[in-house]
Amino acid sequence: MYQARGEKHWFIPDGYIPPDSTGALTSHESVCVLNCSTEEALIRFTIFFEDREPMEDILVVVQGRRTKHIRTSSLMKDGAPIPVGVPYAIELFSDIPIIVQYSRLDSTQAENTLMSTMAYPLK
Amino acid sequence: MYQARGEKHWFIPDGYIPPDSTGALTSHESVCVLNCSTEEALIRFTIFFEDREPMEDILVVVQGRRTKHIRTSSLMKDGAPIPVGVPYAIELFSDIPIIVQYSRLDSTQAENTLMSTMAYPLK
Amino acid sequence: MYQARGEKHWFIPDGYIPPDSTGALTSHESVCVLNCSTEEALIRFTIFFEDREPMEDILVVVQGRRTKHIRTSSLMKDGAPIPVGVPYAIELFSDIPIIVQYSRLDSTQAENTLMSTMAYPLK
Amino acid sequence: MYQARGEKHWFIPDGYIPPDSTGALTSHESVCVLNCSTEEALIRFTIFFEDREPMEDILVVVQGRRTKHIRTSSLMKDGAPIPVGVPYAIELFSDIPIIVQYSRLDSTQAENTLMSTMAYPLK
Repeated sequence: MYQARGEKHWFIPDGYIPPDSTGALTSHESVCVLNCSTEEALIRFTIFFEDREPMEDILVVVQGRRTKHIRTSSLMKDGAPIPVGVPYAIELFSDIPIIVQYSRLDSTQAENTLMSTMAYPLK
Repeated sequence: MYQARGEKHWFIPDGYIPPDSTGALTSHESVCVLNCSTEEALIRFTIFFEDREPMEDILVVVQGRRTKHIRTSSLMKDGAPIPVGVPYAIELFSDIPIIVQYSRLDSTQAENTLMSTMAYPLK
Repeated sequence: MYQARGEKHWFIPDGYIPPDSTGALTSHESVCVLNCSTEEALIRFTIFFEDREPMEDILVVVQGRRTKHIRTSSLMKDGAPIPVGVPYAIELFSDIPIIVQYSRLDSTQAENTLMSTMAYPLK
Repeated sequence: MYQARGEKHWFIPDGYIPPDSTGALTSHESVCVLNCSTEEALIRFTIFFEDREPMEDILVVVQGRRTKHIRTSSLMKDGAPIPVGVPYAIELFSDIPIIVQYSRLDSTQAENTLMSTMAYPLK
């Protein structure tokens, strides 16, 4: 039995799905989760916006002793994805401790660029 | 009623508004705030410089259960913005806990580049 | 005698070795370790994947009062490296406290891009 | 009298001064310090390498209520700068609490790229 590591509650204030891409790489964001535990982690996402009500209760499972690099474009609520080209923010709440990193690839202007940061944990 | 999350006091030492842009994207910085609480957050910015007195008491409101991606070029003190092309630093003090991430897009040289980091919280 | 600084246990959820490179710079990741202590640090890496069992017990030594910028492509288990072009995650466990930063250079699309973040420490 | 904020002891494991630049922007790193206090901060840098003894006791002053974005190429020990194109790491020790962020601009390959992270504080 491996122990769960990290925290259950994480935040990413700077969410944005670039609407455009050029070249071989598609603009996207990844919420990268590491689950060190033997048990699976059930993660509940809340998506916050600047000018409308949050999208709540989007669920993702990460298997035990696995990572999952979750494309934000894959997160759906009642069949609707997060809109592209709109500033938003992400809250994750997991039933067991996990570790979360956020990265964005933007290929709007011919060449790609990357940014990354650990998400902010509530302790 | 949703609870406020995060911290009230945050710092970003590396502020810089790139004076030049190329292509479709404009160089800019965003201070991305997430307010998880039902109540609105009143945030007071202080801008520090290398060679002059700070700009103090710039106020921004973030509504409850909302994010706001604040362009630093929108921060004004007595009608004067933060000067471009000058190294500076940012302090945020909120009346309720929030989470803060800082990102910069620089398109000075034809293609854009991004950098991002969580702001540093005082606990 | 210099004291060890930092933490013994660190995590990097967003690992990815870009398979392609262009120009003078080769796409790569670095796990940058600082060992402030007089003693050497023995670090045990575990590599987690999305769809297969972890690679465990990869050992790296960092001398006392030295840094080591470890290319992830140099990490080998029974002669096999971390596969390129695959999402993965990294756990480091050191016998003495160290400080860990993660950076990636991606030169897939003509010009290079960089991202960097401190690894996440277990305290 | 304004109070000092942050921590006295910070680390940046991934130091690297890119030897090449193209276009209008010069490759460089900045160690961005924010001193919120009324008093000046006296900072002592130690530079660690992979294969040689550290450069110790490089001193920098940051005035009270000021930020300083310190180019690593300006750090000198007995007239010698940090060598370019060499992996290194940075330790900062300040006599009063400060906040430290690290950023690198790399313009080796025609277009510039940026990376940034908060330094790691010892608490």
